[in-house]
Amino acid sequence: MKVVGHFINGETCIPEGRLQDVFNPSTGQAEKQVLLASEFTVKDAITVAQSAFSAWRNTPVNKRAQVMFRFKALLEEHADTIIELIGQEHGKIAHDAAGELQRGIENVEYACGAPQLLKGEHSKNVGPGIDAWSEFQPLGVVAGITPFNFPAMVPLWMFPLAIACGNTFILKPSERAPSCAIYLASLLKQAGLPDGVFNVVNGDKVAVDTLLCDERINAVSFVGSTPVAEYIYATANQNGKRCQALGGAKNHAIVMPDADVDNAVNQLLGAAFGSSGERCMALSVVVAVGDKIADQLVDKLQTAMLDLKVGAFDNPENDFGPLISKAHQNKVEGHITHAGQQGAAIVVDGRGTSVADHEQGFYVGATLIDRVTPDMDSYKEEIFGPVLQVLRVESMQAAMALINAHEYGNGTCIFTRDGEAARYFSDHIEVGMVGINVPLPVPVAYHSFGGWKRSLFGDLHAYGPDGVRFYTKRKTITQRWPSSGVREGVSFSFPS
Amino acid sequence: MKVVGHFINGETCIPEGRLQDVFNPSTGQAEKQVLLASEFTVKDAITVAQSAFSAWRNTPVNKRAQVMFRFKALLEEHADTIIELIGQEHGKIAHDAAGELQRGIENVEYACGAPQLLKGEHSKNVGPGIDAWSEFQPLGVVAGITPFNFPAMVPLWMFPLAIACGNTFILKPSERAPSCAIYLASLLKQAGLPDGVFNVVNGDKVAVDTLLCDERINAVSFVGSTPVAEYIYATANQNGKRCQALGGAKNHAIVMPDADVDNAVNQLLGAAFGSSGERCMALSVVVAVGDKIADQLVDKLQTAMLDLKVGAFDNPENDFGPLISKAHQNKVEGHITHAGQQGAAIVVDGRGTSVADHEQGFYVGATLIDRVTPDMDSYKEEIFGPVLQVLRVESMQAAMALINAHEYGNGTCIFTRDGEAARYFSDHIEVGMVGINVPLPVPVAYHSFGGWKRSLFGDLHAYGPDGVRFYTKRKTITQRWPSSGVREGVSFSFPS
Amino acid sequence: MKVVGHFINGETCIPEGRLQDVFNPSTGQAEKQVLLASEFTVKDAITVAQSAFSAWRNTPVNKRAQVMFRFKALLEEHADTIIELIGQEHGKIAHDAAGELQRGIENVEYACGAPQLLKGEHSKNVGPGIDAWSEFQPLGVVAGITPFNFPAMVPLWMFPLAIACGNTFILKPSERAPSCAIYLASLLKQAGLPDGVFNVVNGDKVAVDTLLCDERINAVSFVGSTPVAEYIYATANQNGKRCQALGGAKNHAIVMPDADVDNAVNQLLGAAFGSSGERCMALSVVVAVGDKIADQLVDKLQTAMLDLKVGAFDNPENDFGPLISKAHQNKVEGHITHAGQQGAAIVVDGRGTSVADHEQGFYVGATLIDRVTPDMDSYKEEIFGPVLQVLRVESMQAAMALINAHEYGNGTCIFTRDGEAARYFSDHIEVGMVGINVPLPVPVAYHSFGGWKRSLFGDLHAYGPDGVRFYTKRKTITQRWPSSGVREGVSFSFPS
Amino acid sequence: MKVVGHFINGETCIPEGRLQDVFNPSTGQAEKQVLLASEFTVKDAITVAQSAFSAWRNTPVNKRAQVMFRFKALLEEHADTIIELIGQEHGKIAHDAAGELQRGIENVEYACGAPQLLKGEHSKNVGPGIDAWSEFQPLGVVAGITPFNFPAMVPLWMFPLAIACGNTFILKPSERAPSCAIYLASLLKQAGLPDGVFNVVNGDKVAVDTLLCDERINAVSFVGSTPVAEYIYATANQNGKRCQALGGAKNHAIVMPDADVDNAVNQLLGAAFGSSGERCMALSVVVAVGDKIADQLVDKLQTAMLDLKVGAFDNPENDFGPLISKAHQNKVEGHITHAGQQGAAIVVDGRGTSVADHEQGFYVGATLIDRVTPDMDSYKEEIFGPVLQVLRVESMQAAMALINAHEYGNGTCIFTRDGEAARYFSDHIEVGMVGINVPLPVPVAYHSFGGWKRSLFGDLHAYGPDGVRFYTKRKTITQRWPSSGVREGVSFSFPS
Repeated sequence: MKVVGHFINGETCIPEGRLQDVFNPSTGQAEKQVLLASEFTVKDAITVAQSAFSAWRNTPVNKRAQVMFRFKALLEEHADTIIELIGQEHGKIAHDAAGELQRGIENVEYACGAPQLLKGEHSKNVGPGIDAWSEFQPLGVVAGITPFNFPAMVPLWMFPLAIACGNTFILKPSERAPSCAIYLASLLKQAGLPDGVFNVVNGDKVAVDTLLCDERINAVSFVGSTPVAEYIYATANQNGKRCQALGGAKNHAIVMPDADVDNAVNQLLGAAFGSSGERCMALSVVVAVGDKIADQLVDKLQTAMLDLKVGAFDNPENDFGPLISKAHQNKVEGHITHAGQQGAAIVVDGRGTSVADHEQGFYVGATLIDRVTPDMDSYKEEIFGPVLQVLRVESMQAAMALINAHEYGNGTCIFTRDGEAARYFSDHIEVGMVGINVPLPVPVAYHSFGGWKRSLFGDLHAYGPDGVRFYTKRKTITQRWPSSGVREGVSFSFPS
Repeated sequence: MKVVGHFINGETCIPEGRLQDVFNPSTGQAEKQVLLASEFTVKDAITVAQSAFSAWRNTPVNKRAQVMFRFKALLEEHADTIIELIGQEHGKIAHDAAGELQRGIENVEYACGAPQLLKGEHSKNVGPGIDAWSEFQPLGVVAGITPFNFPAMVPLWMFPLAIACGNTFILKPSERAPSCAIYLASLLKQAGLPDGVFNVVNGDKVAVDTLLCDERINAVSFVGSTPVAEYIYATANQNGKRCQALGGAKNHAIVMPDADVDNAVNQLLGAAFGSSGERCMALSVVVAVGDKIADQLVDKLQTAMLDLKVGAFDNPENDFGPLISKAHQNKVEGHITHAGQQGAAIVVDGRGTSVADHEQGFYVGATLIDRVTPDMDSYKEEIFGPVLQVLRVESMQAAMALINAHEYGNGTCIFTRDGEAARYFSDHIEVGMVGINVPLPVPVAYHSFGGWKRSLFGDLHAYGPDGVRFYTKRKTITQRWPSSGVREGVSFSFPS
Repeated sequence: MKVVGHFINGETCIPEGRLQDVFNPSTGQAEKQVLLASEFTVKDAITVAQSAFSAWRNTPVNKRAQVMFRFKALLEEHADTIIELIGQEHGKIAHDAAGELQRGIENVEYACGAPQLLKGEHSKNVGPGIDAWSEFQPLGVVAGITPFNFPAMVPLWMFPLAIACGNTFILKPSERAPSCAIYLASLLKQAGLPDGVFNVVNGDKVAVDTLLCDERINAVSFVGSTPVAEYIYATANQNGKRCQALGGAKNHAIVMPDADVDNAVNQLLGAAFGSSGERCMALSVVVAVGDKIADQLVDKLQTAMLDLKVGAFDNPENDFGPLISKAHQNKVEGHITHAGQQGAAIVVDGRGTSVADHEQGFYVGATLIDRVTPDMDSYKEEIFGPVLQVLRVESMQAAMALINAHEYGNGTCIFTRDGEAARYFSDHIEVGMVGINVPLPVPVAYHSFGGWKRSLFGDLHAYGPDGVRFYTKRKTITQRWPSSGVREGVSFSFPS
Repeated sequence: MKVVGHFINGETCIPEGRLQDVFNPSTGQAEKQVLLASEFTVKDAITVAQSAFSAWRNTPVNKRAQVMFRFKALLEEHADTIIELIGQEHGKIAHDAAGELQRGIENVEYACGAPQLLKGEHSKNVGPGIDAWSEFQPLGVVAGITPFNFPAMVPLWMFPLAIACGNTFILKPSERAPSCAIYLASLLKQAGLPDGVFNVVNGDKVAVDTLLCDERINAVSFVGSTPVAEYIYATANQNGKRCQALGGAKNHAIVMPDADVDNAVNQLLGAAFGSSGERCMALSVVVAVGDKIADQLVDKLQTAMLDLKVGAFDNPENDFGPLISKAHQNKVEGHITHAGQQGAAIVVDGRGTSVADHEQGFYVGATLIDRVTPDMDSYKEEIFGPVLQVLRVESMQAAMALINAHEYGNGTCIFTRDGEAARYFSDHIEVGMVGINVPLPVPVAYHSFGGWKRSLFGDLHAYGPDGVRFYTKRKTITQRWPSSGVREGVSFSFPS
């Protein structure tokens, strides 16, 4: 069976070591194995990255950006390979993987602008003959620890910008979807990146903890579940590292009585069920304001869901694919079952879905649950599956109160035509990313991504302007030149 | 004896509670007492600040800035009172306290620019008909914990900007110099700040820990010693707060062979002995490159130091005053003693200094120690006293290696006339604030203050642009309007 | 009779020269005279400003800002005097003059932020060992030529920012309202501005042309009518000066069928009749979409206008005051007459208004004209009086086409509740300042003011960020230090 | 003979019309002809560009940037073709043309960052419930008129950024080097730019005047000689267009007594003679401070110049090539002759240079003239040939006075090791682009290019941040939503 190894110092390497199965969720079969890095291997990668830092840091920023220009072109050229690798290990359909890759490439494009983004501020005459300016210098070796659900996009949120800022990088991707990162590394080398600047180590908690404890790692970016994010953030901080750790979510959409219902239904289908709901920005809760709109919504959603197709990643006619693992499939089905037991109405039931010729695949069908209440477990926890739950309230204030009371604050959305409602909502909702008639308000690459409350640990959001600040440290220089220099000297020396 | 209490909800309050002596270091006498807040009192202040938040946040930013304009005027009007309070409790001479206040006022001026500073970024057409923008919203209740050595300036680094950004604030000043903060609070009220937006609680670790653990506090800014900074940072993070914690320093100046020696000597005197060296930016180590320049420097410093006057805060002819406490006086003298024991040459010895009529004051005279080496305790630790140590090296590289090897990275300086040396130094030195012929490179208020390595815990520096980012959270809004709105509706409704 | 002179080099001066009457429009009487500067006097002022430039330019930016902080405080302290001077010479009621002054003061506040606003951009390592940065340096002597209708605000748009940027300034106010500028100059001196940095010359075309032709003037800011703006812009450019010249306007509001009509009526009254319509941002045309909303609007406006009071500036119960001159009164009444002759319906007629005890004042009452068409003279030209005209169209597209076809493009507004209509309007309308339910969309001082098409000649808008760019010139410095400097020299010199 | 036509609406077109010879300056032979556009053709191009505007403006900025990413890749791929076209018509050697192209490509890279560069500023709560933001909207059809000396780079300063900002563009290149622009147009089409967005018209004053007078052209960027720049600027302004017109130069280098002379000599050779001195940033005057350094400089320059090779563009061993035309060759030789007649010392004389096998080519050899004085014609005028003149002064102040007195203020440089001298120079010199030990201080693409005094007419510099501002107009939107919208409506409708 193929073994997925590491990428260190410009080379793929597959040392002896622990192995773990990598499944194809569409078939339910283990088709590859991934090497789980030892502490020794991770430290070796850090040493390599450390060695590469000085030369890379001193490479003019415009030259560093050239690598990103070429990397973008290579990503576009080899998109099919990347999409296939994502599909095999994650299960998402090609059109969905293509979308993921596209969002990732936009972060590479942003990193191409490093010469503009790294400008400091210069002040003349802060005092008599004194100037001051700021420089944003790279941190050194930084690490990224990324989840299974976006094998290309989330790593691309991190390393292109970090590297363009002059850092060297170690990526630890999810061991459930390890191949994409190795392939990205090979493209980056092809794009002209010097060896050692970007390294990938596959692994599990051993690798993570080595990264978190080694003092040569200066910063850690993480995306995953909230409990792990909290652990990563605390451990990185204890070890003197800068850290941003993005965790879970429970994204609500409010549908107002004046909303364009057909548009809302259309948007919600993709936002709730796309990628089987395995997105931290998945829209998993609808809060309908008033029973009238709630009834319309449930009715139209139910009808529309009849047409949704779940199946293997390699059939482009499917709308979404399997979940990541058997265990996760069981967990999602359990949430549906509990919701029913706790009194919710299961309008469309995706449990027990079987896909022809792929009976072992980890499938759950699109599920719609109505009359959910805030005390139900299925409401409190992140399900991370193709399950859309509907709550009914009688006012916009009640809808907002629900959202503000939830532990997560990643994304949210309102469907309305009314400017005042939209403005009030976006001003007062305690959520970091807000959509107005946009159900997946993932900020574009030149803004920054980040939730509030227990969805993000850290001061700075991911990518975009905050990403630049995260991957650099501020140095402020104040300069005065003593007055009796060569200038006056000369006029003394050469009297007429 | 006068008791210094708290300032909560717009009122001075002096509840029953534990008391601690406040000394006048110039006389060595306890002249006041300070109340040490109980957990109950701190929580009360938090409740008050929490209640004031909603209205203050919704006050237009321009109105919030008006309070800062008036506050600046009041600080200037009442400068003498503030300077007197600083002198009584800290011991610094009036001209030094005036300088401190001036730097503090400049932070109020910066906060006056809040309308400009809080602008988000707006992008039109990030997709067809889709716009996106960012808003920087206040955090809620935030806290500042400040040291004895700048009773006015360090609080002014924090609360004016935090408040102008829309937060409400709780300040816990040093219990050794508690009066200034209370007076600032009264001026802020006079400037029109609504009650509850700014509160002062005096206290000790009880107050600190209450602030660090109460979940309603959203962020903590701290300035003090490194061990405490580390504790504050870890505890705040564990409790889900944003934190920036500024710690200790050991600031080196390199003197190059081409430096203007007289200018360097002149600058070093103030930077080393000003405020008795009780500044985190005090320049306490000189690294002379080559024995020739070292001999000149030591000789000229020794001569110049003869003229330095140490004495009570209220005599403007003094150059600097006492240390903060008897214990600290003993500690500083101990460092001098050890340096001598470990082989350094004590060129000018400030131990045993006695000031006429103030024999109980905590005085140490200006001290110059030559031939210090990196293994000596006096080199490794922050002395925080009027002690300047000289190291001798044979190259600029060796000088820079010394600095880069030290655990602290707050400030540093090079004295040279040479553009290339200055540029190489500022680029490669691992220190956050760099001076070129500027011995105290404290960034002006419109840049940001922060050291590297163990001098600062957190991603963002204090005040200036980083201060704005620290005291706000980013919200990104993505907006699309459904197309079949009133616009087309109208054209359908009124055909010609 | 009192003679209003000049303010040059820190002194009021009243040399011999031509005099012109200054009227009190509320009484219709000439109560003062203004001196009209000769070419000699203007050139003298330029010489003075030129001499003051070098020292002012070299004053650290933070010190320059201090003058603005004090100036703001003085403007607030002496607001009543300024309001009285505005009322006497312009005729606007105290509450209106107070509003004008407030907007002006906000520009002073913005200028207080000069240290932040003047930051250049610094790039490290644009090539190996090469840095580059930009500085925004002052231009030298710059001039402002300002209109009668905002004797305080429009000058305050210009000189505080120009001066804070390091320029010296010559203001030529309207000869119809000359006193305010002189008073502002005296306050600025009191605020600590060095003599010669700010100068006022009163005068007519002789003064204007001297300013436009003297090569020592580097830039000219103008606000007035379009024909004069065009002349100023062309002449300044021919003489090698930077110029921004703001001209006339014809500001339309679209009222959509879904608008809150009562709110719209309320807003329109102030926007149309405030300051007798003598504002370049006055809202003088309503475009109602559909007859239904048009009928409601006209009806409600007519009713509401019964309560409007026109009268002398010194009665605070009046809503608005007289026009600036007898000639202008006649012109405005002529426009009303022509509109009637050309077929429009004069719903409320302000012609022939007489104010008790002030029968000679230049009054025109609030006027409402319905069923105006684009071919009428009253529609094509700027009336600059208390005349609100209503056009009726059948679609939003038709309303926008009207606005886009007009020669002016200063301000505009839409009244709607619908997010989509507002977004489409603001995106596609060919107007520089757009209001959504805001009838007078004058940008706040930290944004910039400027119309499109024939409402502004020049690249950069007035005040705010564009104002900073206008009053400074960009210098870009690229720096490399030869490598064999003192740094390596030292290591060669001191081998171990 | 090959005829170079136009590129309009995505197609090369060669209508009937006036023709003019295009010379190969290396051989002195006319090898092609260029079509000179009629007024009709230019107006046709404008119509095409006007038609393409609406769709292009509404294309999301990220999509517009994609064209620039692909364009950059194509420019790199086809660099040899471009370099050959430049060499044939301009005469510069391949390594020089490659450098030109590289600087041009960097402007395309900057344009790739359009999503970042076009962000407006967003302010929440400028008043109660009122928000305001700015948008930078494209102007419409804009034009570029470019010189012969940079057939690729100067057009690339203009159109990539203009187009990325959403404008459509008409380029009128020099009729002496017309082929490169047509080729760039074909690559841009290949990169996916919609037809009509970028158009090239070749021509002479007829074409220029048509562009300047047609009201559909909104802005004109020009680079050329000062008299033409002045004409272009005045005419464009008269016709209501935004304009930036870059003119001539006389760039001085000051060599200080402490300079590294060998480094200075090395830098000066390239800066003075590269591209035969036909660069607006050519360094054509050396001001030596003190005779000692002057003698060294002249001596070392003379020696070094022996190795310089002048010859045809297609021999890569040549250092520089011919001048653009016979007439210009005569003019340059005339300047040398006059300098000798007026008393200067011609140290190295390039007159009468003949290149084997290319005797008809327009060659002038590298020329060094010492003891030039400010009254000589060769000093006052821009020579635009391979002629380096030396002036001798006795102080840095005298050297700076010379530069500040010259009518041009494009670029300048100082050679020194001294930080103070460099800082004083860069602060006080009246020149827009300043080099410190950098003889050709052309700002990198992410800063902006522009001279002062009669070297640039207009407010905004070329490319970089000023370029973005030049190619966009500011729109400021102020928004308030009436309060009684759907939000409260809902809560009324559904009481519990």
